[in-house]
Amino acid sequence: MLSQPGAVARQLLQIARTNCRSASDYASASPRACPHTNTSFAHTRQFGSLLRPSLPIHQLKSTRSQVLSAPNQYTRALSGRPLPQRRSVLLNFAYRSAAIVGTGVGFVTVLFVAFFFYDSTTYKESASFGDCHVSEVALEPPRGGPKNLPIIEALLDDDENDNAKDKKQKPRLVILGSGWGSVALLKQLNPDDYHVTVISPKNYFLFTPMLPSATVGTLEFRSLVEPIRRILSRIRGHYLRGVAEDVEFSHKLVEVSQIDSQGEEVRFYVPYDKLVISVGSSSNTHRVKGLENCHFLKDINDARKIRNQVMRNVELACLPTTKDSERRRLLSFVVSGGGPTGVEFAAELFDLLNEDLTRNFPRLLRNEISVHIIQSRSHILNTYDEALSKYAEERFVRDQIDVLTNSRVKEVRPEKIIFSQKADDGSVVTKELPMGFCLWSTGVSQAELCQRIAAKLGRTQNNRHALETDTHLRLNGTPLGDVYAIGDCATVQNNSADNIISFLRGLAFKHGKDPETLELTFSEWRNVANAVKRKFPQAVSHLKRLDKLFEAFDKDQSGTLDFGELRELLKQIDSKLTSLPATAQRANQQGIYLGRKFNKLAHCAPGLTRNEIKDGDVDDACYKAFEYHHLGSLAYIGNSAVFDLGGGWGITGGIWAVYAWRSAYFAQSVGVRTKFLMMMDWLKRGLFGRGTCTPSP
Amino acid sequence: MLSQPGAVARQLLQIARTNCRSASDYASASPRACPHTNTSFAHTRQFGSLLRPSLPIHQLKSTRSQVLSAPNQYTRALSGRPLPQRRSVLLNFAYRSAAIVGTGVGFVTVLFVAFFFYDSTTYKESASFGDCHVSEVALEPPRGGPKNLPIIEALLDDDENDNAKDKKQKPRLVILGSGWGSVALLKQLNPDDYHVTVISPKNYFLFTPMLPSATVGTLEFRSLVEPIRRILSRIRGHYLRGVAEDVEFSHKLVEVSQIDSQGEEVRFYVPYDKLVISVGSSSNTHRVKGLENCHFLKDINDARKIRNQVMRNVELACLPTTKDSERRRLLSFVVSGGGPTGVEFAAELFDLLNEDLTRNFPRLLRNEISVHIIQSRSHILNTYDEALSKYAEERFVRDQIDVLTNSRVKEVRPEKIIFSQKADDGSVVTKELPMGFCLWSTGVSQAELCQRIAAKLGRTQNNRHALETDTHLRLNGTPLGDVYAIGDCATVQNNSADNIISFLRGLAFKHGKDPETLELTFSEWRNVANAVKRKFPQAVSHLKRLDKLFEAFDKDQSGTLDFGELRELLKQIDSKLTSLPATAQRANQQGIYLGRKFNKLAHCAPGLTRNEIKDGDVDDACYKAFEYHHLGSLAYIGNSAVFDLGGGWGITGGIWAVYAWRSAYFAQSVGVRTKFLMMMDWLKRGLFGRGTCTPSP
Repeated sequence: MLSQPGAVARQLLQIARTNCRSASDYASASPRACPHTNTSFAHTRQFGSLLRPSLPIHQLKSTRSQVLSAPNQYTRALSGRPLPQRRSVLLNFAYRSAAIVGTGVGFVTVLFVAFFFYDSTTYKESASFGDCHVSEVALEPPRGGPKNLPIIEALLDDDENDNAKDKKQKPRLVILGSGWGSVALLKQLNPDDYHVTVISPKNYFLFTPMLPSATVGTLEFRSLVEPIRRILSRIRGHYLRGVAEDVEFSHKLVEVSQIDSQGEEVRFYVPYDKLVISVGSSSNTHRVKGLENCHFLKDINDARKIRNQVMRNVELACLPTTKDSERRRLLSFVVSGGGPTGVEFAAELFDLLNEDLTRNFPRLLRNEISVHIIQSRSHILNTYDEALSKYAEERFVRDQIDVLTNSRVKEVRPEKIIFSQKADDGSVVTKELPMGFCLWSTGVSQAELCQRIAAKLGRTQNNRHALETDTHLRLNGTPLGDVYAIGDCATVQNNSADNIISFLRGLAFKHGKDPETLELTFSEWRNVANAVKRKFPQAVSHLKRLDKLFEAFDKDQSGTLDFGELRELLKQIDSKLTSLPATAQRANQQGIYLGRKFNKLAHCAPGLTRNEIKDGDVDDACYKAFEYHHLGSLAYIGNSAVFDLGGGWGITGGIWAVYAWRSAYFAQSVGVRTKFLMMMDWLKRGLFGRGTCTPSP
Repeated sequence: MLSQPGAVARQLLQIARTNCRSASDYASASPRACPHTNTSFAHTRQFGSLLRPSLPIHQLKSTRSQVLSAPNQYTRALSGRPLPQRRSVLLNFAYRSAAIVGTGVGFVTVLFVAFFFYDSTTYKESASFGDCHVSEVALEPPRGGPKNLPIIEALLDDDENDNAKDKKQKPRLVILGSGWGSVALLKQLNPDDYHVTVISPKNYFLFTPMLPSATVGTLEFRSLVEPIRRILSRIRGHYLRGVAEDVEFSHKLVEVSQIDSQGEEVRFYVPYDKLVISVGSSSNTHRVKGLENCHFLKDINDARKIRNQVMRNVELACLPTTKDSERRRLLSFVVSGGGPTGVEFAAELFDLLNEDLTRNFPRLLRNEISVHIIQSRSHILNTYDEALSKYAEERFVRDQIDVLTNSRVKEVRPEKIIFSQKADDGSVVTKELPMGFCLWSTGVSQAELCQRIAAKLGRTQNNRHALETDTHLRLNGTPLGDVYAIGDCATVQNNSADNIISFLRGLAFKHGKDPETLELTFSEWRNVANAVKRKFPQAVSHLKRLDKLFEAFDKDQSGTLDFGELRELLKQIDSKLTSLPATAQRANQQGIYLGRKFNKLAHCAPGLTRNEIKDGDVDDACYKAFEYHHLGSLAYIGNSAVFDLGGGWGITGGIWAVYAWRSAYFAQSVGVRTKFLMMMDWLKRGLFGRGTCTPSP
């Protein structure tokens, strides 16, 4: 059998040679040697090698593919026509490129056509307006509650179909706010466990980390928002546009206000079984005068106002009637606050002015533009690793962004900002800066609703800046398992000492002992430490070497910890625990945590025996306490980005870091839609730059 | 020679047979006949056919490609391994599809990577701030003119570089407005002929025909605008943001006002050599009371307000505290005016409510929504062919859009609209319609600037609605060749009779004759007709059969036309000429005309001998008069579109017509940028629907 292929090879070799001869016959006028000879012999060698039966299969494949290109020559010769000239490498390359590009373009075209087909199905002809059942109580809500307001016991779409009717029987979960915390929670919830109602003045979720980009037109506003109803549709939840004004904890009612079409305030109650407060925070004014002359950056509308103001100033500066000093003032942009928002805004603003304004505007403008950052601390990005904040400062110096550290704004006037700066020698000087635009981004303070709630709950709420919750995110001072608070508006109370002490007291009394005389052996201490870890997951990293701690705090070397020593130990751990940062990251994690817990609670409660629930704490019995995992911080600083990965690790870099920064947020964004839109926007920026229209479209 | 390939074929045949045998050896357990036999013989036949030397080359190609697939089998056999099973058609198809998709995806990936490379070059590091020369006169404009205001004789970027300095010497072309006319003109101008300054309160060009789409979020606002500076950059023109308030024709100065940063009005003069007035029009109020309760649709800001109001109404209607009647009122949307804008807006609004609102909003809302169009004429789209407007009306009836024809709005109140409707029997009934939103789009009226100019020019301007120009688009009553007016703000005066009569009078006096006794023979009449055609291109279609006209108007059969008969004839033609429509199409054509003429004027004037210029009319000597070519009208009417191609030709259709409608505007849009953005927007709409956020981002 194997001799047969050998004959084939010989035959083929002969053909190749004949071929060659025939070619030279035709091309006899040419003095060159037959151009095919080399190729033919190459083939011969390959055929020879094929005779070896032990050839590995992958080699076989490659030789075969080479053979495949050969017959071209033989069939050519058969026609008796002149042989084609050997194709040049370039020509071959061109042919192949053309084929690949052709296929590629064809592929894209097919996608395009497919889209058109799909698109043509998205146009709805008139919907059939079938009858729609709405309960009487939804159309005419009864009045009640402490203020005798309408109580929304049923919603307009509660009886729309069978599914909605089923939902009416489920526990009512009311969520205040439509930010990071709420949306993370909504995305975790099972569709069928709760009757969910979101109450918020904004009917969309805003992707806040990218807001500075949107102010200058790098991103479209629409790419940053996701309608809350779209998010709610998966769990068939409801949305009411309104502002939560107060909560009646004993009646389980939220008081909501809404401005009606005549401009009058309407108030009503929304009942809840579980309430999640996630209303975020407001800007911190630090009681500075003249903040009405400043812009804030919390919302889409703020961003639009900023964009308009920046472009208006630039256009005014273009007019020859504008005085020189006035032009310089108009083009002096001040950012008050050197946190991530302020820094990113300054960087984006600089990009706009540097990349887009230099193109079609008078060059004079570029020379007169100045961007200033006023920061009260000694560094910008002071929550970041010091190396990173230094890198950012150097970058800004290169970009001629003026960083004024150790400076406190005293007053903002329409045409200037007055601030005091502490020099290195400790002396404080008051300075003035003429400005045409000021952004105020000096941190957050408590929203009005939270202030009202904190006042109502009195002694159980001791934090001036946020609502205090326990580690299960339940609002302190409210009935256990009724009210939760997450995101910027809340903080997790870390006083493990107080908590554990009272727990120990209870234990001691149970055993008929006086807590003051309680002595803990090492194994007892280990049990207590485990209880602490369970209740305060944030303390885990500080409770790693239990023996060392025991030794260190057992000051009288008694081999046991007495009550005082234990309190000292726990207090020291408390002091090490910092409060969680007011970031989107934390809100997101809390939302996810709460969503998972609610899913669990909806199903595990009936199966729990009485013994598993301690002190009526269903949450504790069902689900672990909340633990925050810091994933790092990142900031854009103008054609460059910094990443603080925690523990002293950080990355800085140029364009690639910018792409990485974008990727991080790209991955974080809510859904396919926003991802696609953001991608489109970056594409647009790359191709066409940012928009420089007034009023900004 | 030819016998050799024959041998090859025989050899190959033998190989194939051997091959087959070898396969059956391996597969001897199988009772089936050798599956390769057929294939092999097929090859044989092909090889046989190759022996015919007269085979046409295209057949040769196809057979060759079949042969190409053959060696696979031979080389396989050489390895001594079992033969592969013949691949199924499906498998082959799958392989090929995979290859095509793979190449396609690869192609897209390469494009993507290429974009990233390009993108990374678009980030500018800090620009070097070289010195920038600005003339003293630009920084401190001298005062002068009738009102002793600053005169902007030089701009901030007039001395920026050599090119700009050259430009200073060129004639100053000042263009008022940044709409269709101005932009068409700018796109036609040669870069080096004029020192161009555009003055407009809007620093962008707005693609107005698509504005109704933008109000409901089918398109982004940004996709419809093109910064005017970007358009100006090609011809290195200048832009000043301001409102033209008045023109001093004898001083050649435009008075411009601008609100400075303190909110005070600043006025200044801009000198011109040539002035183009293209400020558009304002909405026609028809002196109806209560229009402050209406929305208009002229600008991006209007569109945004509309979007916000629509969504606000819908959100309010979702609240259970909203009374039933109030809900119905909030969801009653009224469009006053059945022209293209009104109709398209109603259609787009219906799309939004029908396609997007039904998704995630309570179904009750959909049942309560009503859209009404109030039209004063007997049909909507009354400028279109009657068949088309009937089609649109039928379509709207199906979509449950309420068309109220023969109705005039008398008053608009915050919560209702009062209108009178004429019944078929001629009786007029006053009706009321509760409404939550009203769009006012009942045509255009003269802008303030134009009113002021018309008043100033007095007797030479007799049109209450627009500035009158001659057929060279020069503003009547101003020095010849100084001031032009185009677009909605202008109308071309068609009184050819008056014009020609005075022309004839001149002619008669020149020949010492009394014009009243002038008798025109047919050949003289032909000359006059040609002069009319030249001066009034719009009359061409009415001057086709000159002999017929001559006969018809030579009432006394004298063989000549006397003065009275000629005047009658021309008056009749005049009466047939309708004034040009106030559309983007006309403004665009006028802009292009003016641009081409200016290009010509810049170069031909020095070469013209005195004889070529009649009565000092350089425009007439250099360039033909303006002629309008109607290309048809089109309108979107909700998942359907109508095209009026003029002369009774029209097209109506479903989705394909919508695509055609889009394509028409797509082709019309200003540049690659807007085209790309519009495409993206339609893609977004198809994939994700419209946005339903409040306030609209």
